[in-house]
This record gives sequence, structure tokens and C-alpha cells, in this order.
Amino acid sequence: MKTLLTIPGVEVRALADSRKENALRAQGIAKEMRGTEPALHVGGRSSFETLCARDDLDAVVCGGPWEIHVPTMVAAMKHGKYGATEVPAATSLDECWDLVKTSERTGMPCMMLENVCYFQNVMTVLRMVREKCFGELIHFEAGYQHDVRFTKISRRSRQLKWRGAHSVHQDGNLYPTHQIGPIAQWADINRGDRFAYLTSMSSKALGINDFARQLLGPRHPLAKKKFALGDINCSLIKSVKGVTVTLYHDTNLPRPYDLIFRAQGVKGLYMGTVDGIYLDGISPEHHKYEPFAPYMKKYAHPLWAGLQKEAQKNGGHGGGDYITLYEFIRAVRHKTEVPIDVYDAATWSSIMPLSIESVKQGSAPVKFPDFTRGKWRTRKPLPIRGPR
Amino acid sequence: MKTLLTIPGVEVRALADSRKENALRAQGIAKEMRGTEPALHVGGRSSFETLCARDDLDAVVCGGPWEIHVPTMVAAMKHGKYGATEVPAATSLDECWDLVKTSERTGMPCMMLENVCYFQNVMTVLRMVREKCFGELIHFEAGYQHDVRFTKISRRSRQLKWRGAHSVHQDGNLYPTHQIGPIAQWADINRGDRFAYLTSMSSKALGINDFARQLLGPRHPLAKKKFALGDINCSLIKSVKGVTVTLYHDTNLPRPYDLIFRAQGVKGLYMGTVDGIYLDGISPEHHKYEPFAPYMKKYAHPLWAGLQKEAQKNGGHGGGDYITLYEFIRAVRHKTEVPIDVYDAATWSSIMPLSIESVKQGSAPVKFPDFTRGKWRTRKPLPIRGPR
Repeated sequence: MKTLLTIPGVEVRALADSRKENALRAQGIAKEMRGTEPALHVGGRSSFETLCARDDLDAVVCGGPWEIHVPTMVAAMKHGKYGATEVPAATSLDECWDLVKTSERTGMPCMMLENVCYFQNVMTVLRMVREKCFGELIHFEAGYQHDVRFTKISRRSRQLKWRGAHSVHQDGNLYPTHQIGPIAQWADINRGDRFAYLTSMSSKALGINDFARQLLGPRHPLAKKKFALGDINCSLIKSVKGVTVTLYHDTNLPRPYDLIFRAQGVKGLYMGTVDGIYLDGISPEHHKYEPFAPYMKKYAHPLWAGLQKEAQKNGGHGGGDYITLYEFIRAVRHKTEVPIDVYDAATWSSIMPLSIESVKQGSAPVKFPDFTRGKWRTRKPLPIRGPR
Repeated sequence: MKTLLTIPGVEVRALADSRKENALRAQGIAKEMRGTEPALHVGGRSSFETLCARDDLDAVVCGGPWEIHVPTMVAAMKHGKYGATEVPAATSLDECWDLVKTSERTGMPCMMLENVCYFQNVMTVLRMVREKCFGELIHFEAGYQHDVRFTKISRRSRQLKWRGAHSVHQDGNLYPTHQIGPIAQWADINRGDRFAYLTSMSSKALGINDFARQLLGPRHPLAKKKFALGDINCSLIKSVKGVTVTLYHDTNLPRPYDLIFRAQGVKGLYMGTVDGIYLDGISPEHHKYEPFAPYMKKYAHPLWAGLQKEAQKNGGHGGGDYITLYEFIRAVRHKTEVPIDVYDAATWSSIMPLSIESVKQGSAPVKFPDFTRGKWRTRKPLPIRGPR
């Protein structure tokens, strides 16, 4: 809410939430920042339906739990509105197809608000990839390596939170879009190449039990409850054109935050873990990473060059959240395509169900559906352009 | 040769090589360092046979190309001698079984000289694993990420070297033991747990062509020759008890050397790439790596504590090579088991043929043979002990 309202020209006319207190809190933000009073739709879990049916909205933005993303986006598009959803857009292949087919049928775009794609280092690498700094790209690696145990168990209620509940029955990469988004953009996935298949493997599951033991004591049922989700899940993805991706999901163990972000080509690589880059014949020391910071200036993405000040003032995640919403609002305003569309949203989100299937089958390879139905061959790469 | 001759009591009585000039060079080292003159066996590629048949040797050490490791070790054991071989011990499953069966039949031990197992950081982590610093272990990662393009093409002869020839027809992890050795020891593989299966994926292959183009010009046949070996191969391994391993083979591209070495448990992790460690509740900053150096002192492995000076003076790879040979010679002298025996050598080496098979089958999971035939359940973990 707060970031959205800092973007010039944006008005929030209505709010929906299954809990009235949340809607009121958001309404209070609008009052404070803009002096307006958005209408409230608080009729239970389907309150988004009446909101989407209003005739005074251009776009609907959904930030609820995973389960309501697709229903909300489908309702928005059916009512002729742009949709934008938090990640992951979808949690099953059926939901992925729902998004794609609804967008195709209604002609309405829907964007997945994958904010990591708009991080400053990620966009710098995107520009460097386009300028062939790494030569032809060969391999990528990323990980959602983030100790989010606190989102899985509530110390106050002494129960699983909804995100923890996902770990009870499902084993795979449950949160793939933060990792795969930047890589898919670097590799022109759905825009010249596409993911062919993946294989996925999970470790044993001990982390949540251990956390429950610390938080709630060794006799609490969660200290012994069986969780399906392996503490570390690792997936390997191959594209039709032969690039490969290693993808981690690592959320149940105490560890430093590290999204990895390796982009490796014939002429060198970027390695986010060490915040370093090595370019053959260019980096000053043979076989040594040099700091990435100077490249952030030299190869600044024009969106960052133009918006850095507003972004860092108004948006979380180092400013990435602002630029994500800026790009969505720009598309709505100009009635153009969104940069992360339903094909991307479906492909990236599908890694959750596909990895679950592979793990279930003892790491057997599982094919990606071609959500573009052949259009990946002719779709153009994302433009590198500044704000306007 | 040089390192071996620095170990007290070691005598080199005979040398075999298919090329006489190499044998003479080694002979010169013995003359210079010890004033002795080892006998030469230089009758072509099977010269090791007559050497192994001598009756004045306790042990045979093999440092030739991959293809002669198993034939030499089998000949040594059949003649009642301890064997020690460079890595990988074997390159096919048949060869792996040859090693295992010959050792079982003859009662003679054979060690794979996997020097990375004896690196100072690796042995420190081994001790920390045993002292449960990381809690129960969940996941490991390592990579042979080493730009060894210079070992694949000769600038002088303008041809492929023998290691480059391996890249022509084989696609998989062609050099797995440096990575998997430390991990297998940390995870007590073949000593309480065992590897169940792996899946492997390779990227496209552009690196060797690009290197040939730079080295020999764009018209040289190697600039266009088709290589099977993907530039980046990544394998996922699962153990019977549920630990997982990610393993990279990355030798065809310009990059900083990085073996990765991640050992991750319920209480924290060691991460070689950043030379850092994070232990929950112990590391001073929440979710931040601290430098590993102080732990190298606090948890020094007794072999390093006792031998550091000699090791660093006399052995390559930071001293690891000395400790590797020291451990072999100790076993020979005391007629005890070797620390990296035929079961380990076979298991670690088998990742080459198994990963090739998985890649051929589109990343299908492939089972590890149980080279111990059930003995992994009762074999004891490696002892942590000092020199004597």
C-alpha cells in the first residue's frame, strides 16, 4: 500500500480482505498519505469478487496468501482489469493454465510482482548479459536460501502458520520465483528459449522440528510432527537450447541470507554470493573475483539510473519493490503488456508443482509444459529501457 | 616423488614409466635427495607389471593417466603389495568392482590418494562434524570448479592432450573425487550411511572450442570440433539416510578456482566459497558468516596439529599432499587398513560413469552399486587421530 501510493497518479479506490481489521489498517494508510477513504469489501474469503466487479478500477493488486492469487487474478481479468499478484502466482499446473487461458481469452494482462527481478544487482547483470559481457551464457544458479522459520511457526499461538502448513504435506521447491525470475530474464526464457525439464531432490526434514523444540519446548507436538518438506531442496533445470540452472530452496535452517545468483558464460561469471565478478581478460587479477560495485555504476540499468532516489526512499528490498510496482503501473497507464506476464508467471510458478512431482518420483526428470504454446520461439526479449 | 622421499624411512627401489625420459627424471630426484638409484622398468605401457612382480617392494604408488590406475593397483595387490593410486581410482563400474574384488580376494589394501581430503580446512570441518558443531548434517555441496583448459589442449603440439580427449565422447562429471571425497568422509559414507542414487545434468559445450579459437586460431579444427562434455555438469546425490549432495564439474570456462565445500546441518554451516562459518547462537552476528580462520586453530585436526610444519615444507596443495602420503605410508608400515580404501575409491570414482549414464538418459536417477555389499552398516567412521 505505502509503496503504491508513492507512485504519482495512483489512487486506491477499494480494498478487500477476509479480515476487516486488515482492510481498516490499509484504509488508514490511504487516509494518512492521500486523505482518501477507499471503499471496503470484507465479506469473507471471496470479498475480492465484489471488488473486482467494481467499475471504477483499472487494476487489481493481490497480496494475500498463495491460495487466493489465481482466483483474484482470474476475477480481475474477467472484469476487464489489469491484474498484479504477489509470488508465487500459482501453486498447481491447473492454476498456471487458468492464468494463461484467462489472459488469452480476456485480452487482459496480468503481472507477477516478482520484486527480485528488479533488484539493482539483478538488473545490472541483465544489462551486462545483453551487452554480451559474459559471452554466451552457459549456466545459472540461484537459491531461496533464507531462514524463514519464523514464518512457519507462531510463538504466540504456538501453532503452525499458513506457510508452515505448506511444509507438512509437500516436498519440493515451494517458493521458486524469487530465484528463477532473474535467471529466466537473463536467459530469455519464453523469449527465444524455454525450460525443457527439471529434476529435483530433497534432503531429510529436521529443521522445523528443531525450531519448534527451541521455541515451544521438546514436548510440544510440533517438535515431533512429521514434515514432508526436506530442509534443503535442490532442482536442476535444462532449457531447450542447452543452458542449465541449479536452484535451491533452503528455508528451514539457521543460515545467512544468500540468493546466490550465479550467471556464468564463456567469458566469465557474476557470483552474487561473493558480490564479485570475473571477466576473462578484463578482470585485473587472473582467476580472482573483483568487486561488483563499479559495474553497478558502469552498467546501471536505465530504470535504476532514472529512479534510484524515489525507489530507495519509497520501496522495500533496497528499492526493488518500488520499481516492480512502477513497471506495473506504467503498463496499466499505457495499456501495454506487463514485463512479467502470465507465461512467465506460469513457467516460474510451475517449478513448485513440477519439483514436488520429481521428488515424489525419486528425482525423475519432469517436463515443463510450454505455456506459450510455441510463441517462445518468436517472443522478443524484454526491452532495456528507462522510466517515462 | 619429492614428497614421498621426505617421509622418514621411505625408500624408492624401482620406477616404471612408458617413457624412459620420465623414469630417468624421477631417478634423478632419488639420486639427488637420497643418493640412491632406483631400478627402471620402461618396457612400454605394461612396464608396471614387472615392477609389481619385484620382491623388494612393500607398496606401489601409481601417478599415471586415469587408464592405468586400476591395472596397476590390481597387479600390485595380486603380488601382495599395498597399492596407492592418483585420482580417480577408476573410470568405469567394472574397474570399480575389479578394485574391490581384488582387494577382498588378496587381502591387500589399496588407497586412493585423494589429497583434498587432507586439506587443512577440510580436516578441520571433519573434526567439527564429529564434535557435532553443525548439529545433524543435512546437505553438502562441492565442485571441481577449476579452469583446467590448459590440460585439455596443447599449445605446442596444437592437439588435444589426453585429458582433453576425455571431453570428446563423455558427458558427465569426469573428475568427481576431489569434490566428493571430503563430503563422503564428513557424511560417514560407507561407514554408517551410503549413497543411494544420483541424477546429473550437463549444459551445452562451448568452452573448449572457444579456448581453441583463442589459442590456435578460428580456423583450427579444434575451434569447431564437437565436444560431448557439457561445460557445466551438476549432479545431485541422495544417501540412504536422507542427506543430499550437490556436485559441480566445471573445468572448461575461465573462472576463479572454487571447490565450494558447504557442510550444512541443523545448527549452522561451513561455506568454503566465502571461507566462512555460521553457527546458530554462537556466531556473533545474527545470520552473518564469521571468518573460518579461528576455527582452524580451535578445531585443528590432530594430524595437522602434529605435522603442519613438515607438511607445508614438503607437500604441495598447502601441505595436503604430504599428509595424504604420510597416512598411506603409516598404513603400509603398520600393516593396517588404509583410510581411503577400495570401497571409498570405488564409490567416489563411480560418480563418473553413473553421472555419464544419467546425462545420457536425460537426467534420470541412477542407483549407486553397494560396493561394500552391506558392510556400510557396520563399518566404523574414520578415526580422528594424530601422527605416530
